[in-house]
Order: sequence, then C-alpha cells, then structure tokens
Amino acid sequence: MSEDDFKRGWKRMVEINELGAEAFRDRMEDFAPDLYRDTVEFVYGNVLSRPVLDLKTRELITVAALTALGDTRSQLRFHIYGALNVGCTREEVLEVIMQMGVYAGWPAALNAINVAREIFEARDEEGLD
Amino acid sequence: MSEDDFKRGWKRMVEINELGAEAFRDRMEDFAPDLYRDTVEFVYGNVLSRPVLDLKTRELITVAALTALGDTRSQLRFHIYGALNVGCTREEVLEVIMQMGVYAGWPAALNAINVAREIFEARDEEGLD
Amino acid sequence: MSEDDFKRGWKRMVEINELGAEAFRDRMEDFAPDLYRDTVEFVYGNVLSRPVLDLKTRELITVAALTALGDTRSQLRFHIYGALNVGCTREEVLEVIMQMGVYAGWPAALNAINVAREIFEARDEEGLD
Amino acid sequence: MSEDDFKRGWKRMVEINELGAEAFRDRMEDFAPDLYRDTVEFVYGNVLSRPVLDLKTRELITVAALTALGDTRSQLRFHIYGALNVGCTREEVLEVIMQMGVYAGWPAALNAINVAREIFEARDEEGLD
Amino acid sequence: MSEDDFKRGWKRMVEINELGAEAFRDRMEDFAPDLYRDTVEFVYGNVLSRPVLDLKTRELITVAALTALGDTRSQLRFHIYGALNVGCTREEVLEVIMQMGVYAGWPAALNAINVAREIFEARDEEGLD
Amino acid sequence: MSEDDFKRGWKRMVEINELGAEAFRDRMEDFAPDLYRDTVEFVYGNVLSRPVLDLKTRELITVAALTALGDTRSQLRFHIYGALNVGCTREEVLEVIMQMGVYAGWPAALNAINVAREIFEARDEEGLD
Repeated sequence: MSEDDFKRGWKRMVEINELGAEAFRDRMEDFAPDLYRDTVEFVYGNVLSRPVLDLKTRELITVAALTALGDTRSQLRFHIYGALNVGCTREEVLEVIMQMGVYAGWPAALNAINVAREIFEARDEEGLD
Repeated sequence: MSEDDFKRGWKRMVEINELGAEAFRDRMEDFAPDLYRDTVEFVYGNVLSRPVLDLKTRELITVAALTALGDTRSQLRFHIYGALNVGCTREEVLEVIMQMGVYAGWPAALNAINVAREIFEARDEEGLD
Repeated sequence: MSEDDFKRGWKRMVEINELGAEAFRDRMEDFAPDLYRDTVEFVYGNVLSRPVLDLKTRELITVAALTALGDTRSQLRFHIYGALNVGCTREEVLEVIMQMGVYAGWPAALNAINVAREIFEARDEEGLD
Repeated sequence: MSEDDFKRGWKRMVEINELGAEAFRDRMEDFAPDLYRDTVEFVYGNVLSRPVLDLKTRELITVAALTALGDTRSQLRFHIYGALNVGCTREEVLEVIMQMGVYAGWPAALNAINVAREIFEARDEEGLD
Repeated sequence: MSEDDFKRGWKRMVEINELGAEAFRDRMEDFAPDLYRDTVEFVYGNVLSRPVLDLKTRELITVAALTALGDTRSQLRFHIYGALNVGCTREEVLEVIMQMGVYAGWPAALNAINVAREIFEARDEEGLD
Repeated sequence: MSEDDFKRGWKRMVEINELGAEAFRDRMEDFAPDLYRDTVEFVYGNVLSRPVLDLKTRELITVAALTALGDTRSQLRFHIYGALNVGCTREEVLEVIMQMGVYAGWPAALNAINVAREIFEARDEEGLD
C-alpha cells in the first residue's frame, strides 16, 4: 500500500463521518499505529473506495452486516451517522435494520434500533437530517 | 395476517426467485405448514414487500447479512440468484461479498464467493445474466 | 395481521413482563411504529401465542437462545424477568444458563449469569420470587 | 472427575441417543480420547445429569441453542433424535425451531427444519415416533 | 472431579490473574456455586492445566477466540491482563487482535483493541509491564 | 499495496500450505481477481507476514479463531494442514481445538475435531507428520 491509498482512505473516512474519523484517529494513531494505517489504507482507501457500488449502498450493506453480526454498537454509531451523511434517509436506515429482524433475529434488530434512535437524536440536536 | 398478505408474499417470492420459491413450497408446505405460511405472509408479504427500499437494495443487504451470519449457503443460493433476477449485476453481488471480508472476516467472504461462483455457473448454463 | 393479533400479542407481552412491555411500547411506538406493531402482532401475537409448548418452556428456550446468541443483555433482562413471572424458578433459569456453557461456551454463560443476578436482586427488592 | 461420572455420563448419552452415542465413541475414543472422556464425564455425566430440569426440557433448550448457534447440523441430528427418544413430540421440536426464527433469524430456523425433516424421515423408516 | 482438580484449577486461575480470580470467586461462589466450581475444577483445573501447550500460548489462543466470538469484554479484560501476567508482551497481544481483523472482521478487532488499551492503561497505573 | 507485498504474500501462503495456495489461486484468480489479490497481498503479504508472532503461533491462533467462528471447514482444512507444515504438532492442534470447547462450546470443538481427523488421515496417506 502507498501514501496514495492512505490519502484516498482518509478522504473517504472523512466523507462518511468526519468527526468519527477524527475520534478514531485520536484513539488509534499512537496506540495501534499499524491497525490504524491498515484501517485507513486498506478498509477505506481500498475496499470502501472501490467502484461498482455507490457509497450509499456501501453504507446500507454495512449497517445490515453490523446489525447481523452483533456486538457492534460503536461501529453502528459510526456508520448510521455516516449513512445519513452520504445521503441515505433515516427511513432507509430503519428499513435495513427492520429487515435484519427477519434474517438475524429480533434481538439484533432491536439493538440496532436503539443505536439508530441515539444517533437520530444526536443529529436532531445538531440540526442535521 | 390475511389471504392478501399471503398472495402479495408469494408474488414477491416468485419475483425474486420463482424456481427457488417453488422448491421451498414443495419442501415446506406439508412438513411445516405454519412456518411456510409465516415465511410467505410475514417475511415476503410484509417485510420484503415494504416500500422505502427498492428490491435491488433489499436483495443486496440480504446477501450482505447472509454472508456475515455464516452457515447460510442454502439461503445465499436463493438470494444471490434472486439478486440477479431483480436487476443486480454479478459485479454488485461480488462487491457486497468482498466488503463483507472487512466486516465479517475473510472466511465469511470466501464461503459466500464460492456460492456466488456456483450460482453464476448455473446461470451461465441457463443462458441468464 | 389483524387487530386481534395485536390484542393477543399485547396480552401475551403483558403476561410475560408488564413493566418491560410498557417500557418497550414507550421506546418504540413512536420511533419505529411498524417494528413495534410487528413485534406485538407477529412475535407475541403469533409465534409466542402458539399452542404445543407452554409459556414456561417458551421462556426457557428463549433464555437458552439469548444466552447462546450473545449481545442480548437487554433481551435477557426482559425474558429472565418474564420467565420468573410465568412460573419458572430461579434454579431453572440458572440451570438453562449453566447448560449453555457447554453448548455456547463459558463466556456466553457467564454473561447471562451476570444478567440473572441483576434481575434476581431487582426482584428481591420488589419482594418477588 | 471419576469413574462414576463417566458411567453416569455414558448412561445418560445412551438414554438420549444410543446409536449416536456409540457412533460418537467409535469416532472419538481413539482419535481424541481426552475430549471423548470430557464429553462423557463432564458434559453428560455432570451438566446433563444435573437435577432441576427434566431431560425433555434439557433436550428442548439444546435444540434451541443449536438452532440459534448455527453450523451444528451434526449436533442437531443427535439431539433432535434424542429429544424424540426422551419423550418430546415432533410438534414440540418444530415449535422450538419455529420460535428460533424470531430470535436467531429465518436462516437458522430453516436450516434446523431441514435437519428435523431428515431425522423424522429416518425415524419413520425405523418405525419410531 | 475432585478436590485436587479444584486446587489445581484455583492455583492456575491465580497464576493467570489473581485479582480477577478473586473477583470472580466473590461474584460467583454464593450466587452460582456449581458453575463456580465447574469453572475452577473443569475449565482451569482440567482444560487450562493440560500439558502440550504452554500457558502463554493458551492465553494467546484465548484472546484470539474471545476477540472472534464477540460480546466478551469482561472475559477479554481477564485474559488480556492474564496474558501479560504469564509472560506475553503487549505487542504479542496486539498482534493477535490485529490478525483477528482478517479472520473475524474489523469490528471484532476494534472492540478488542479498546479493551487492550484499557488494560494497558490500568497496568501503567499499577507499574506493571 | 505493491508487487512486493504480493510476492511476499504468495511466498508466505506457499510456506504455510503450497497445495492449498495453488488450489485457492486456481479457484479465485479469474473469478474474483481483486479478492484474490487482496488475500495474497494484504492477508498473507501484510498481516500474516508481520513480525512479533512466529508463524507457528499465528497458525495456532488462526485454528482457534476458525474453530470459534464456525462455518469454516474449508479454512480449517487449509490452516490445520498449514499449522502442521510450519512445525506445529498434531497434539498442539488438538489442544487448541479442545480448549475452544470451553470458550466457544462443544459443537464448535467437535466440528473442528472432525476436520482435524480428516486432515491427519490425509497426511498419513501422504506420509507426512
């Protein structure tokens, strides 16, 4: 990987969730620098910067996967906030979570719904959609 | 639930994957009639027939969730085949699976890739996209 | 689904855990009304109101499943409290969790034991079995 | 653990599923003797021989947990067959699995239903309930 | 199992994490005495006291498994602290977690990294490696 | 990432399991070239080529994680075979799996034991340790 991958990755992270990206950098850059670099370069600079799927769809499948996997509240906060930043509507996020009730079970969906409410309320306070 | 939910659900199952829907009916209708009816009425007639998300997006988040959950080869066969039927491209299906490598781990993604190849080959033989 | 399913579902939720049902309604009714309605109508009014298994057994298999699935503290609180409400003993709840150590691993069982202790202490304060 | 635990465990395994117990012994006794002994002594001689829950309930919560966990076809075969041996009805086994659709998701329930059908057919051929 | 197993198990628990072992005993001994005894006798006195793998390796595979399983913060605290007590370095613990990003997905690794930082900071305050 | 990462990754894959690496290349190179390249470059050329942990330890934690995750038979075949290639003993592999019974539950351990037996028999036929 290269400096270009890192730059592209950081740009994409910021595009999805600038405050979350900065908080992630502050927590990880010194403590686990290699995992931090791999996250920016590989996850965001490579995988999440690929073509074929638009960023809205990438965020919705991420919300779906995080809901299904469980134990991902922190990641759901980042990506529900991020999904709304890149143009998904609140209704779309709730629909994805609701469909997960059927595929991953009600507890998984209800856990994610609670994160969604928390994020929507935070955005209300910030005056964001 | 009502007869209308059942009809709408069956129509949606057929729209996604007619052969798969018929095979499901043949396996389940007599053996587990209540689970069969709930699947058609509730899963397909209610959840998967809701508005807000188009059917392509619903199939892509389903492929994402099934890849992340694991132990879902049979369901992945139905929904990868179904995703292509409702207008997703093979490239989009592979992109979803590839992104799951990052969220659910490489083994989950590699298992799903193997199902995708199997389905793509079956569709090649059937002359389908 | 119908108004009857909803009524039967709400009655069943209240039978299992009245305070939990009301808290659930207060959190969900406005925020995610469709998921709220599906939960009451389909999960409680349809699945958990079916015959064949008595309510005690339904609550014990639910505690088993929630323990095995993980990341279900909120749902375990509802259903451990509910299991005791519908006639399971504390010893039965602990036995189910202990058996899960073997099937789902020690961490899953220890997490659920901590929820059980929390619920038992709350019931002690309320003067309940 | 002691010889007594082992004897009690083997007796319990045989009570649940004699053919399955013998097949397990044949596969494991030489290849992984310590895991074999721990399974008989600890899992069956200790945990599954405890009081408080009757054996029918223990088998139903095991079917619930195995359905929820996924990737457990081999264990589901043993315990669905075993549940029926110790007095559970086929309807009860199907009810447990159906309830898991709600807690662990449809794919988990459908996978377990397929194992149940396979076991029921095998028992039909053997002339068993 | 015997008194010897219990003594060996307790000694091993203390060797791995004395404060954690005492906290576990205080929480469990009265509330769930059988699960407490099984944990000490079977998990620590039997499985974790076996030869073939040294204790450092046992702790590293435990950290790997807990990271992969998810919803194991409490157990990760015990075993990351324990891994360092029995001679693993902080770098080794971080490497194990980082490798889990690939096998279990980024969310699992990031959750475990957060526990590792918390434990490392606690040890800094205690003047431990 | 660069050609160097790819070369280092391929060398590491071959070091772990040459036949498995070639079979993986044959299945993936044309069908999913980007996932193939990421696997070689990132997983093997970056993560699994890092220092701090020796290759034996990396393979043992991988066997632990794959056992715990479930639905990973194909990956367990690759890595149990690989663990033995890089110097782990059969006893060490079995010990890792056995410890997983405690952390991930008996079904996970028994599934992995069955893969281990299959791989050990294949190596017996090949005259390998």
